[in-house]
Amino acid sequence: MIAKTIRTPYYAVVFSSVKTGEDNAYDEMADSMMELARRQPGFLGAESARNEVGITVSYWESLDAIKKWQAHPAHQIAQERGKENWYEKYAVRICKVESDYFFEK
Amino acid sequence: MIAKTIRTPYYAVVFSSVKTGEDNAYDEMADSMMELARRQPGFLGAESARNEVGITVSYWESLDAIKKWQAHPAHQIAQERGKENWYEKYAVRICKVESDYFFEK
Repeated sequence: MIAKTIRTPYYAVVFSSVKTGEDNAYDEMADSMMELARRQPGFLGAESARNEVGITVSYWESLDAIKKWQAHPAHQIAQERGKENWYEKYAVRICKVESDYFFEK
Repeated sequence: MIAKTIRTPYYAVVFSSVKTGEDNAYDEMADSMMELARRQPGFLGAESARNEVGITVSYWESLDAIKKWQAHPAHQIAQERGKENWYEKYAVRICKVESDYFFEK
């Protein structure tokens, strides 16, 4: 679903990845990380889709909230397992959302 | 694929959408818009995936390049058709990419 976010400015983390194919409990970890992210202070929402490339965009109130989430011990472990097992490559882009526009039928 | 972008800062447009199900030449329009975008000044790359929600992130050198692309006549027509036919809802978020990190095995 499309995340309902707050008035700009807020922050986004764009995580784009290509997987190795070693699936090895990937979905369980991805789901558990998303549940954990939702409980972090400053989390606003997230959107995710995967075909050849996977894209997860999470939205946050501040850069500080993003830093704390990136440093969360369980997230650190997931990041290590991601590099060892699941991801062929990825990009993380930390963004300030300066303006937004929503359309709904 | 994961876009190869320039040194930060640069800009990103996160386009998140839910489709109506009326397909009506959607893929042709989406492909043709992506080809056209690639030829615009300041375009750096794009990433795209769709499941329940579709996410396309395009990267640009400047806000000005984004404004020009949004105002491009062929893109305007595509945007109108998108609202009329293809999209149940969408969000467009204009972002400044402040930092990035790349991993490759």
